[in-house]
Amino acid sequence: MPLCVVGSVALDSVETPTETRENVLGGSAVFFSYAASFFTTVRLAGVVGDDWPPQYNYLLQARGIDTAGLQVVAGGKTFRWRGRYLKNMNDRETLDLQLNVLSDFDPVLPEPYYRSKFLFLANGSTVHQLKALDQCTGASLVVADTMDHYIRTEPEGLKTLFKRLDGLVLNDSEAKLLTGDDNLVRAGHAVRKMGPRFVVIKKGEHGAMFFSQHETYVLPAYPTAEVVDPTGAGDSFAGGMMGYLAEQDNFEPKTLKEALAYGILIASFTVEDFSLDRLRTIQREDIEHRMEEYKKMLSF
Amino acid sequence: MPLCVVGSVALDSVETPTETRENVLGGSAVFFSYAASFFTTVRLAGVVGDDWPPQYNYLLQARGIDTAGLQVVAGGKTFRWRGRYLKNMNDRETLDLQLNVLSDFDPVLPEPYYRSKFLFLANGSTVHQLKALDQCTGASLVVADTMDHYIRTEPEGLKTLFKRLDGLVLNDSEAKLLTGDDNLVRAGHAVRKMGPRFVVIKKGEHGAMFFSQHETYVLPAYPTAEVVDPTGAGDSFAGGMMGYLAEQDNFEPKTLKEALAYGILIASFTVEDFSLDRLRTIQREDIEHRMEEYKKMLSF
Repeated sequence: MPLCVVGSVALDSVETPTETRENVLGGSAVFFSYAASFFTTVRLAGVVGDDWPPQYNYLLQARGIDTAGLQVVAGGKTFRWRGRYLKNMNDRETLDLQLNVLSDFDPVLPEPYYRSKFLFLANGSTVHQLKALDQCTGASLVVADTMDHYIRTEPEGLKTLFKRLDGLVLNDSEAKLLTGDDNLVRAGHAVRKMGPRFVVIKKGEHGAMFFSQHETYVLPAYPTAEVVDPTGAGDSFAGGMMGYLAEQDNFEPKTLKEALAYGILIASFTVEDFSLDRLRTIQREDIEHRMEEYKKMLSF
Repeated sequence: MPLCVVGSVALDSVETPTETRENVLGGSAVFFSYAASFFTTVRLAGVVGDDWPPQYNYLLQARGIDTAGLQVVAGGKTFRWRGRYLKNMNDRETLDLQLNVLSDFDPVLPEPYYRSKFLFLANGSTVHQLKALDQCTGASLVVADTMDHYIRTEPEGLKTLFKRLDGLVLNDSEAKLLTGDDNLVRAGHAVRKMGPRFVVIKKGEHGAMFFSQHETYVLPAYPTAEVVDPTGAGDSFAGGMMGYLAEQDNFEPKTLKEALAYGILIASFTVEDFSLDRLRTIQREDIEHRMEEYKKMLSF
């Protein structure tokens, strides 16, 4: 089933304690799309400037990702983010942020996108998220992400958005910020009561938690000794999760749990190299192989 | 099979954001013993002053815990710890620490303890740990815990100790401190290469990781909305783990993994109330019930 994603498309510059990469392919919708492309066809909506390298489009299209919804603003510059990871590879600081064309983004989607059964509203302003949602009248499952910036600056927009969501994905610090509760079990259910039928809290190296009215569970991250660049881990988690749901064409509790595991595994590949570099080297069978190891790890 | 533990016995005063308890039963060997007592008979070795309330001994003895090795120093005062948990219930500060009789502790064990097949050297000075180990010539499985204080002040003692251990249990920040590596997968194996055949890293609310030459795995914590007092969670984790191994009378990889899960579940009960209060309300069947839920949570 087609999966539509609306979100940021970026040129990232990433500094780690050992290496730096300049202007590599990034952005929430890009990591999401690529991760989901292992499972289903993806329709990407976003905006770039005319500095956007055409080969990045080819790279996405070669994965079956429809870029018809990627607006190109003539004379505009693509959204740029520069960040530095601290030695622990978990904490990072944003060194520079240039919204550029993203600041005037008007998410007008191509007409075929309207009928996407699965819709993901990646990190972004609730104004963009709600406008995209209004167009996707054919969506049966609507899931969104958000972040600290919008929790702080757009509480009303989030309130409206949450009531229209099937699912919300956010990270642990964001769940605490949103609810004022440091206990993630309570925080997860408190977020759920704001509207979404289910909530997923991403805990980075500690895995992810799932909350619905009848279920509370946590799955650990896949333990990896190779953490080269965590950028995009959360977005590719969501891409793996939503991609698997779209492939299975249902969102029953059983499928949601499998989807959470696929999200965790895709993210475990993403962090093993910069940008999409690790995901570009793997096939579906590599994911399935890691899934076997993961299931074995959780059995006793 | 009998399980012997040597460690601290304390009167704890615990302040949480909502409540304070004065002079409650605490100490690493106490939490360990009580947790292990759900699975096997326990021989406890430690030291207290004559301010030690006799009813605390009865409480332990009623659980089949042998207190013959609990030395009582006439005119001495029991080790006291006072701590305060911050709002997040993970970080804590020590407000007061009175070693009292613990500072002159000479772990001379009763003779029957020597033949305990399973031995746990709870948190303490490596001088005490090594002296106890020297006496327990009948131990087939020797596991120890340590903490930041001894990592900083007794590096040589730890070096000697590690080479004589089958297993080491420590928490995530201690593993990072000991190895200088913030990646827990690498840190776990680095600690293992210092001597212990297996290493367990406790991650608090995020579960625990296991490292042996051929295995690396992580199990999540049991998600609980009730965290009243985390004191003793790590020690009761170790007690549950070692207690189960002693009950099963083997330490095969399969049993070790089950033991890790039991440790996680016992700890999930411990944090639900102050001191041993929650553990005092449960039976083995409550642990088994939670184990069923835990296994279901990890199956998909």
